[in-house]
Amino acid sequence: MTVLGLGAMGTALVEAFLAGGHATTVWNRTPGKADGVVARGAVVAETVAEAVAASPLVVVCLWDDAVVRDVLHPVADALAGRVVVNLTNGTPAQAREMAAWAAEHGVEYVDGGIMAIPPGIGTEHAFVLYSGAEAAFEAHREVLERLGAAKYLGADAGLAALFDLALLSGMYGTFAGLWHSLAMVRTENVSAAEFVPMLGPWMQAMIGGNLDRLAHQLDTGDYGHEVVSNLAMQAAAFPNIVQASLDQGIRPDLMAPIQRLMDQAVAAGHGAEDVAVVVDLLKN
Amino acid sequence: MTVLGLGAMGTALVEAFLAGGHATTVWNRTPGKADGVVARGAVVAETVAEAVAASPLVVVCLWDDAVVRDVLHPVADALAGRVVVNLTNGTPAQAREMAAWAAEHGVEYVDGGIMAIPPGIGTEHAFVLYSGAEAAFEAHREVLERLGAAKYLGADAGLAALFDLALLSGMYGTFAGLWHSLAMVRTENVSAAEFVPMLGPWMQAMIGGNLDRLAHQLDTGDYGHEVVSNLAMQAAAFPNIVQASLDQGIRPDLMAPIQRLMDQAVAAGHGAEDVAVVVDLLKN
Repeated sequence: MTVLGLGAMGTALVEAFLAGGHATTVWNRTPGKADGVVARGAVVAETVAEAVAASPLVVVCLWDDAVVRDVLHPVADALAGRVVVNLTNGTPAQAREMAAWAAEHGVEYVDGGIMAIPPGIGTEHAFVLYSGAEAAFEAHREVLERLGAAKYLGADAGLAALFDLALLSGMYGTFAGLWHSLAMVRTENVSAAEFVPMLGPWMQAMIGGNLDRLAHQLDTGDYGHEVVSNLAMQAAAFPNIVQASLDQGIRPDLMAPIQRLMDQAVAAGHGAEDVAVVVDLLKN
Repeated sequence: MTVLGLGAMGTALVEAFLAGGHATTVWNRTPGKADGVVARGAVVAETVAEAVAASPLVVVCLWDDAVVRDVLHPVADALAGRVVVNLTNGTPAQAREMAAWAAEHGVEYVDGGIMAIPPGIGTEHAFVLYSGAEAAFEAHREVLERLGAAKYLGADAGLAALFDLALLSGMYGTFAGLWHSLAMVRTENVSAAEFVPMLGPWMQAMIGGNLDRLAHQLDTGDYGHEVVSNLAMQAAAFPNIVQASLDQGIRPDLMAPIQRLMDQAVAAGHGAEDVAVVVDLLKN
């Protein structure tokens, strides 16, 4: 196949394809980045058109959506009849726009979201989300599995980016929790190494222990059943986190919006319900 | 021992002590809450002074710090020579103030933070953080273990509240991540039950996979070593989460402060370092 883009991630993709024994043609906007993969067997194309012409499957991993459009739009004719799998970071709206453009030009379009950092590509820890043209995806599933477990989400090309960004928002939530928590204990000369064996399993347990209940509440819309620690109680106790942070010299910025959201939900009359009711308030 | 306070948590504490065969005297500001535990063998005291006089160990679990002071200050004389273990939610500053007051009145003071909801008390899932008077804690460790695994953190009475609130901030970070992530995918009629089997393990892996590295970075202050996805790259990609949320009709409130913090760190010249450098920026 062909890979457009040889940043850290694009290079990792090429290496995984080569390791699987797949002939791979590469192109990068800035020349000279290909030396490493050429040494492993990749063929360098001089132009995008040449790169596209080399393979029925064109994997795209560029800086962002604007670069993808700059690179692909001029070679629409060459792409006709081929499959584009776009693994560039982007939003669902961008993916849907690319899919519409591809449909106009007879290109089979699959959008993807890579849930790994470059060193994880091709390992058991990586998975890649795909959405868009299903038959085109299935035709190339086996080779794409070289990158990591492939999860196809549906014909709406925007779904992979939506799930990707949703998962990242979950990750950044956990990071914000880790960061704030560690900032707090470090004010008393507690080392991070001392605290993380308590913090990590605690946070993992708080996820694992709440997941099924949370899913059930959201899917049924019933936030009032068997509530142990209701929203009003949690909202009333939350200022202790903010006050203790301030007392210890830590900015409560990462915690403040959680308090605001809970307070809004209490003000809207949901105090006696489970805290999960706040998810509905995130809808504009 | 004596337990002051029969809210949901105080009642759970009494039940755990009784289940362990310990004679327990109880008091609650509003009468009538004791019926359940009396049926299990607890003795009701009519006044705080009477309750305190009944036991060398007085466990306090009241609404908040203001109520604790209202209840304990008038019985300072009766408390002299006894051990107070205060499990009321509060801040490190409140715990230190209570410890200072106790020292003035010849009371042995231990502060605690319960890391469980009431139904978890006395089970293998509960743990309780303690700090303050060490000998007093050790003298009663065995009976306190009835509530959950007991972790003594040090002589500074504020440590238990600090660790408690830090762990809660970590928990709320994971909750914010779960909430925002689920709000995003639900805009496309994806059920929560369908998404959480992907989301939960992903978030747990993002904690487990980053913990040791994060601790090492914080403890050494070296954020520039073997950086895979640097802060500048993450800060540049983050707007996709915010934009996709807005596009899908979801308020990005829970994510916005993470973006601001990363942008500040980039502006301060840390773009080439690991994202963990933001923890230092949380210091006022």
